[in-house]
Amino acid sequence: MIPENPIIGIIGGKGRMGRWFHNFFSSSGLEVLISDIDTHLSSEEVAHQSDFLIFSLPMDVFPEVVEKIAPLVPEHKAITDLCSLKERQVACMLKHSKSQVIGTHPLFGPAEEEIKGRRVALCPGRGGEWLKWWSDLLTQHGAIVTNVLPSEHDRIMAWVQALNHFILLSLGKALEDEGMDLHHVVALSTPSFERQMEIVGRLCKQDPALYSKIQMANPYTDKALSSFMEHGSKLMDIIHTKNNDKFISIFEEVQHFGKVLLQTKEEKT
Amino acid sequence: MIPENPIIGIIGGKGRMGRWFHNFFSSSGLEVLISDIDTHLSSEEVAHQSDFLIFSLPMDVFPEVVEKIAPLVPEHKAITDLCSLKERQVACMLKHSKSQVIGTHPLFGPAEEEIKGRRVALCPGRGGEWLKWWSDLLTQHGAIVTNVLPSEHDRIMAWVQALNHFILLSLGKALEDEGMDLHHVVALSTPSFERQMEIVGRLCKQDPALYSKIQMANPYTDKALSSFMEHGSKLMDIIHTKNNDKFISIFEEVQHFGKVLLQTKEEKT
Repeated sequence: MIPENPIIGIIGGKGRMGRWFHNFFSSSGLEVLISDIDTHLSSEEVAHQSDFLIFSLPMDVFPEVVEKIAPLVPEHKAITDLCSLKERQVACMLKHSKSQVIGTHPLFGPAEEEIKGRRVALCPGRGGEWLKWWSDLLTQHGAIVTNVLPSEHDRIMAWVQALNHFILLSLGKALEDEGMDLHHVVALSTPSFERQMEIVGRLCKQDPALYSKIQMANPYTDKALSSFMEHGSKLMDIIHTKNNDKFISIFEEVQHFGKVLLQTKEEKT
Repeated sequence: MIPENPIIGIIGGKGRMGRWFHNFFSSSGLEVLISDIDTHLSSEEVAHQSDFLIFSLPMDVFPEVVEKIAPLVPEHKAITDLCSLKERQVACMLKHSKSQVIGTHPLFGPAEEEIKGRRVALCPGRGGEWLKWWSDLLTQHGAIVTNVLPSEHDRIMAWVQALNHFILLSLGKALEDEGMDLHHVVALSTPSFERQMEIVGRLCKQDPALYSKIQMANPYTDKALSSFMEHGSKLMDIIHTKNNDKFISIFEEVQHFGKVLLQTKEEKT
């Protein structure tokens, strides 16, 4: 039922991720049709002429485009998206379509050269054939693909993306405010802090507008940030009151958590 | 004035860092005398018989041992320490000695196999000859040595060590509380979060009791933690009120800060 060389359609094909996947499919030998502002083809034409249709759009314009375009795709074809959140996005695609539906979240940005070793979350929506095709194609190119429920995806992203960036931004702003001589800071970095600064440095590659949406549109963000800040407040109290025993027990708990996490990671690889 | 093969004394030579440096000097071909609980030599004997005397002690017992032993060291010899803080420690060594004085902070733990590429902070205390000898020896073995004022050292350490660990502990505890399936967390990590989890994992190698002292004994810790938490609170408000423009401008400020930091690092290497 899936053609040997399906035609790929990308709506929003001129955006950074759209271009990244255009290149990915082209170099896999597949024909790609794109639509965007100022393209030869309209989104409707791309929807009619392609077998596997990708909505590569900013999350705020995504719903209206899906509402207009998804109904044009027949049952035996498939639609997917590249949004950083999945719960509302997969529900939106399901609502407006009769085709097969997959939620896709590439867990990397357009600065990555290749997909090898990069992670991709897939949320099964409707139908299994195109899901298998898509998952196989990504895996063949070395991506680490994980199937996950849309709600579970968004909950995990509140930690992996929203809280992580929240910490990096708060740390960066606090460091900037302190106005230390950065030559000294660099010269006196521990291996741990050096790694932390590398992560702050990586923010340069990210798109602030996208990350603003990721923070604000994910309903699970609040809980992740609040939990972190509450643990921070408790820990500050422990340090203020010089409660050595309590500090040590928290340190040991996190050491244990870290060990379990590293073991889980090793099992995976 | 400095003998060709000075005899090294290590008070606290059986501790983890004491053993690490014992091994470092031995493999450099230097004779090392140690004292500790249950050693053949007493600390007084080590002080009398060595040329370069290192206090490798927990910070809470450091002052009383220095008060007793440092006065035994003559002017033309030198004392140093390995404490993670330097302002009170260097002042304490200066107060109780007439010898040359250097504050040493190896910015790595005893889990590191070699000193090559690792950073060492040196705080000049009294006299320059042994400082030069010590700095040269460390540099010959590939260490990156930086001279810094004790107060500036402690201020930077409040960020590099105290705040960094504060963040990792708060993050670890919050993640542990959430009780997510860690297989999913690992499978859905972005490159940035993956690195963050590696840093949390590295806490396993650290000594909780030492880090408790580093948090609580550094007078600059309070300001670093408070500043971070204040920026966190402000950022939470910005996210709660969905202030997209303000979030983006903070993101861009931190991107700029990160760029400057990376440039500073590149200049250094």
